[in-house]
Amino acid sequence: MKYAFAQRTRNFQSSAVRDILKVIDQGNIISFAGGLPDDDLFPLEAVEEAYKRVFESGKHSLQYGLTEGFILLREAIAERMAQRKNIRMDTQNILLTTGSQQAIDLFARIMLNPGDIILTENPTYLAALQVFQSYEAQVIPVESDAFGMLPEDLEKKMKTHLPKFVYVVPTFSNPSGKVWSLERREHLLRLAKKYNVIIFEDDPYGEIQFDEAANYTPIAALDNGETVLYTSTFSKTVVPALRTGWVMGPYQIIRMMAQAKQAADLHSSSIDQQALYYLLRDFDLNGHIAVLRAVYKERMHAMLNQLQRLDLPGLEYVVPQGGMFFWVSLHEKINTKSLLPKAIEKGVAYVPGSPFYVEEPKHNTFRLNYTHSVPEKIEFGMSQLVSVLEEAYEAITTDKALTEI
Amino acid sequence: MKYAFAQRTRNFQSSAVRDILKVIDQGNIISFAGGLPDDDLFPLEAVEEAYKRVFESGKHSLQYGLTEGFILLREAIAERMAQRKNIRMDTQNILLTTGSQQAIDLFARIMLNPGDIILTENPTYLAALQVFQSYEAQVIPVESDAFGMLPEDLEKKMKTHLPKFVYVVPTFSNPSGKVWSLERREHLLRLAKKYNVIIFEDDPYGEIQFDEAANYTPIAALDNGETVLYTSTFSKTVVPALRTGWVMGPYQIIRMMAQAKQAADLHSSSIDQQALYYLLRDFDLNGHIAVLRAVYKERMHAMLNQLQRLDLPGLEYVVPQGGMFFWVSLHEKINTKSLLPKAIEKGVAYVPGSPFYVEEPKHNTFRLNYTHSVPEKIEFGMSQLVSVLEEAYEAITTDKALTEI
Repeated sequence: MKYAFAQRTRNFQSSAVRDILKVIDQGNIISFAGGLPDDDLFPLEAVEEAYKRVFESGKHSLQYGLTEGFILLREAIAERMAQRKNIRMDTQNILLTTGSQQAIDLFARIMLNPGDIILTENPTYLAALQVFQSYEAQVIPVESDAFGMLPEDLEKKMKTHLPKFVYVVPTFSNPSGKVWSLERREHLLRLAKKYNVIIFEDDPYGEIQFDEAANYTPIAALDNGETVLYTSTFSKTVVPALRTGWVMGPYQIIRMMAQAKQAADLHSSSIDQQALYYLLRDFDLNGHIAVLRAVYKERMHAMLNQLQRLDLPGLEYVVPQGGMFFWVSLHEKINTKSLLPKAIEKGVAYVPGSPFYVEEPKHNTFRLNYTHSVPEKIEFGMSQLVSVLEEAYEAITTDKALTEI
Repeated sequence: MKYAFAQRTRNFQSSAVRDILKVIDQGNIISFAGGLPDDDLFPLEAVEEAYKRVFESGKHSLQYGLTEGFILLREAIAERMAQRKNIRMDTQNILLTTGSQQAIDLFARIMLNPGDIILTENPTYLAALQVFQSYEAQVIPVESDAFGMLPEDLEKKMKTHLPKFVYVVPTFSNPSGKVWSLERREHLLRLAKKYNVIIFEDDPYGEIQFDEAANYTPIAALDNGETVLYTSTFSKTVVPALRTGWVMGPYQIIRMMAQAKQAADLHSSSIDQQALYYLLRDFDLNGHIAVLRAVYKERMHAMLNQLQRLDLPGLEYVVPQGGMFFWVSLHEKINTKSLLPKAIEKGVAYVPGSPFYVEEPKHNTFRLNYTHSVPEKIEFGMSQLVSVLEEAYEAITTDKALTEI
């Protein structure tokens, strides 16, 4: 039998990351590929306690729940966001989702007609690109530097393209690890208001900051509640298997997303949402996050040490101030996708950079995760990777192009 | 700020059922409205034990999982479906979803272009209609009798409209409570093969059958694995809060749905999926289902007794052989939607029938759930409802139309 799939499936792409993860899962490989937190740091006992509380609360806790999500958890998130992020919104402005991935999807679903335009950073989160493409939208990249989108290019593209929204990961961006300056955040918001464009602020990594004293103000905290949708998740701070994220913003939009969610899956697991509520109530999550910050910072340095030893033409990277990734550029003759099988052969994996690009992928880039492995493994894995890279550079030195550098 | 929502949101409808449930949740009302199983029958201890097993299995159980779902649960479902339903498929032909609602949504997403045609029963599951409308499809109802779709009308509409798929709930249909005959199931499958049309078989209630000896063969069990997608859920047999459903069918379709799911939410809660695996392994679910069948059958009879006492012109209903609902028609002058506030005033609720219709809703219909309340409550609630109905009939006897019956 022949199956006539919908037009939109032509734009479907399987995630490069998840496909690599599948291969890696089968072998004994040190993986810098996924955006995985470290299992060993999971607060297993606190999670188990939290589920106990759910079951103690009686059988009604196992009944169908609200599409918007467990109300006590939404209240706790509202409070937490006010305290930690200075984002002040009511419970009714919050929708609980199956990870922040679903927040991106539901927002795209209620906003995008085929052909609609979205502005993004470039490179940007590839699974967001997957979503936008699946709704047949057109993604246009805005030029950026280390501090965020460039004001002139941003305004030009807002004016010319009248985008439906701007999608940004301004704090420890995936994949580039960048942090936007406050000035650029304010500028984006100002333009968004001027041109009546919504900002979708994706902030999964914001809590993983290495400088405890630093203050990275979310764009949503600068807004009056009209222009910014803000999404985050407990996947990086508690555990991923809970699949509990949230999105907060203008009520009119949240309500429409809730209607879309009603059709999409009625509601997310309410056992998990209730457990998370008890965990936030009874567990010192902020203390736990402080530990994560310290441990991940140490791992970032372990990886940085290895990168600093490399003396390769064209090598570039930014030292992350938080989040989970190094974003590395190599000499333009190096193709990181072709190189990956060799790396895997040597027992180490990364994600090639090209799928993160909107247009004209840079094939000489890759992303390294440092949160999933202990420093000793990072050192060994990096030494393996270094030998793969050095070999690749040797191969291209026969080429004139390199000797000209 | 003005928000320019996508075209498809014009077709969004908030579910009548869930909106009613919200009102009811706030008061002390006997509800025959929702499709809720009874909390008191939830196997709380077995569920709690199952989560314990997950946490005992170690921290890795809390890491990100596969989009397709926890493999041991998929294996257990494959085995269970072979034993209980005679549907034989491999693990790779199964995708785990956030309830079977998500299976409907993902299937619609990969199949439907705007304007595409779907054939359904009429009335049919309203949240499926919501999904199809949100993808801007055109739903065309097929004429049915007590045994399923009428062969002639079905073939005519397949030929004329070349539908993308046929959506059916052939066993204890929601809302009508019907059971398709084997002959009609075979006939639908034959036509589907002839006209190259997929069948989407939604079977959330199949396990709740009152005649233990009866055999309701799923259409998927008659197929060679090419034509039928089959979806079901553990919401009615274990607990709803787990939000764990599945869909099984041709690999090419399941794989495409998994790609759609990757963008939609990466994966559903894997803690819940793992818990369900341990529950299926360690708990006598079939024994539990036997109890549910007996208890719900008794409740159905409690409701039937009350209905049988009613002597109202135009009153019609089918005695359910399983599932959770009575579907009731009244005199055509009675509008059940206008009547609902009066019922709620008297402390009882139902769902008006009109949102379940594809075209020309019959406003004189409503759906009654009998699984959520104990027999005493059913009796009291029905006596209240009866007085509301009798009052409504009195009001229309002043009208000539009724006296002419």
